[in-house]
Amino acid sequence: MSNRAWHLASRPQGLPTPANFELKEAPLPDLQDGWLKVRNDWLSVDPYMRGRMNDVKSYTPPFQIGEPMSGGAVGTVVESRSPAFQEGDQVLHMAGWRETAAGPAENFNKLPPMGIAPHHFLGNLGLTGGTAYFGLLRVAAAKEGDVVFVSAAAGAVGSAVVQIAKARGMTVIGSAGGADKCAWVKELGADATIDYKAGPVLKQLNEVAPKGIDVYFDNVGGDHLDAAFATARQNARFAICGMIDDYNSGSNHAFRYVMRIIAARIMLKGFIYLDFLGEMGEFYREMGGLIAAGKLTSRETIRLGLEAAPQAFLDLFSGGNTGKMLVRL
Amino acid sequence: MSNRAWHLASRPQGLPTPANFELKEAPLPDLQDGWLKVRNDWLSVDPYMRGRMNDVKSYTPPFQIGEPMSGGAVGTVVESRSPAFQEGDQVLHMAGWRETAAGPAENFNKLPPMGIAPHHFLGNLGLTGGTAYFGLLRVAAAKEGDVVFVSAAAGAVGSAVVQIAKARGMTVIGSAGGADKCAWVKELGADATIDYKAGPVLKQLNEVAPKGIDVYFDNVGGDHLDAAFATARQNARFAICGMIDDYNSGSNHAFRYVMRIIAARIMLKGFIYLDFLGEMGEFYREMGGLIAAGKLTSRETIRLGLEAAPQAFLDLFSGGNTGKMLVRL
Repeated sequence: MSNRAWHLASRPQGLPTPANFELKEAPLPDLQDGWLKVRNDWLSVDPYMRGRMNDVKSYTPPFQIGEPMSGGAVGTVVESRSPAFQEGDQVLHMAGWRETAAGPAENFNKLPPMGIAPHHFLGNLGLTGGTAYFGLLRVAAAKEGDVVFVSAAAGAVGSAVVQIAKARGMTVIGSAGGADKCAWVKELGADATIDYKAGPVLKQLNEVAPKGIDVYFDNVGGDHLDAAFATARQNARFAICGMIDDYNSGSNHAFRYVMRIIAARIMLKGFIYLDFLGEMGEFYREMGGLIAAGKLTSRETIRLGLEAAPQAFLDLFSGGNTGKMLVRL
Repeated sequence: MSNRAWHLASRPQGLPTPANFELKEAPLPDLQDGWLKVRNDWLSVDPYMRGRMNDVKSYTPPFQIGEPMSGGAVGTVVESRSPAFQEGDQVLHMAGWRETAAGPAENFNKLPPMGIAPHHFLGNLGLTGGTAYFGLLRVAAAKEGDVVFVSAAAGAVGSAVVQIAKARGMTVIGSAGGADKCAWVKELGADATIDYKAGPVLKQLNEVAPKGIDVYFDNVGGDHLDAAFATARQNARFAICGMIDDYNSGSNHAFRYVMRIIAARIMLKGFIYLDFLGEMGEFYREMGGLIAAGKLTSRETIRLGLEAAPQAFLDLFSGGNTGKMLVRL
């Protein structure tokens, strides 16, 4: 069985390029007792993977040069040596960026029988939706009536934040790049949008939130975070999810309004989805309910074939996606 | 009765200068029923007052040009039209920067009868000690066994943080400018010190805290805050009390390690002393106990006479004080 896999060829300096990736056969280990072999159907590419291309300890271990890359994937069991799985089961796992995954059954999770298309478990019912849900409601403790500002609001996580916040009775301001994306964020229910390509973020934010913001869901860092500092109301809470502005630049952004942390008693907290794995039951219930009620829609940007994976990933950094970026095998 | 008072003559650009202050007579209002007249004995000058010299809303209202300045003071009642106060009572209040204060009795607090010299109520039993106590124990939730990093550790707030942390069984690293101040911070009980004038903060912090820090008590912002980002352990908590590095520069510091907020799940929170006025009973008990037990010493830099107040204040920004800066009238 073929198992072509993307390997890390070299570590990027700044923005990654196709030369950092190499597609080649990765030998599959012999299937041991308790193991599964899975044909991947969907691969996820996510901004956090940029950090794994550096040789530094972060919240996930770095990719190793010459080794296959990994990441979220949904696949179908093609061979099972575990009593808990059968051929044909659909599973969620972390051996993405490749055609075939093999390993101990505990590395794979059967998709819950919710009647929802499998790729959503890489999106609103997976890492992206979970990041939105737990970041907004747990980390930032956002509640009905709050004014919520979210950056990258047309992205996978951001678009879920917009909809969860509206479903919970909050006022939502979403920032996105370009009129088309802003129109979509409005369609999702945002009360106002900011087109960060059309002018300074802070000036626009002051216009649409003249009384300030209670919550900031940060996907980008940089000018957006600084504008959030400038406009934060008393006891504002910032859920720090990502700083995509800084992933490739080495994070040297100067914050003009950082001192407002003190005056406005701002709380900032970094988090990742994995911090909340113990609360997935509640998450599936509420998010499944929102999907069933039509209150949580998603868009996917889908690229076809394993060959497309690196470019799909690179396009995340130039705003080439609306909603969740996926690769279909 | 003479009431010379320091008035704001002009707003500073960057570092304040003596020309921003003017000493002149301020007319005293007639004493109404329920009012007190107080002769000031001690005036406090504090870094936060720099923010009040700007014409921007902050946690305290800005000083107004041509008007008397204000701030913490301890004085003696010389005339009382309130049944709750008698001539000779010692009181704590906010009408500093002047010789005489007059106003409704509710603006004045009688010093609790703890047998402690009155100027301490502007220091370890007042704004500075309270800032240290509540910032360390409430905001950063520092606990026994934590590795605590504190900047401006030879300053009024920082030196209290060092001693409270040691009394509570924490490991303490204090940063100060110069060998003399570092030696004093060691005397206060710090396990290690960093002389920020002797080399890069991050390099030194890595040497003395090879396993990282759990808590950062920030008085300065800038390079110290960035070094704390770089060395934070998982779930580190930062109490953001001040950013004196940025008070005069307009706060344009670039943070190279800000992205570690996510990887290390760092929590930052801004606060001021006034947030905790409801918990002063507990504060007086514990801090009074530490003082009685000889576990909380303080140094004061004392300047004599009302004329000395502006320079005492200006010297805060060039490291001219060890411990609490006070003006004795």
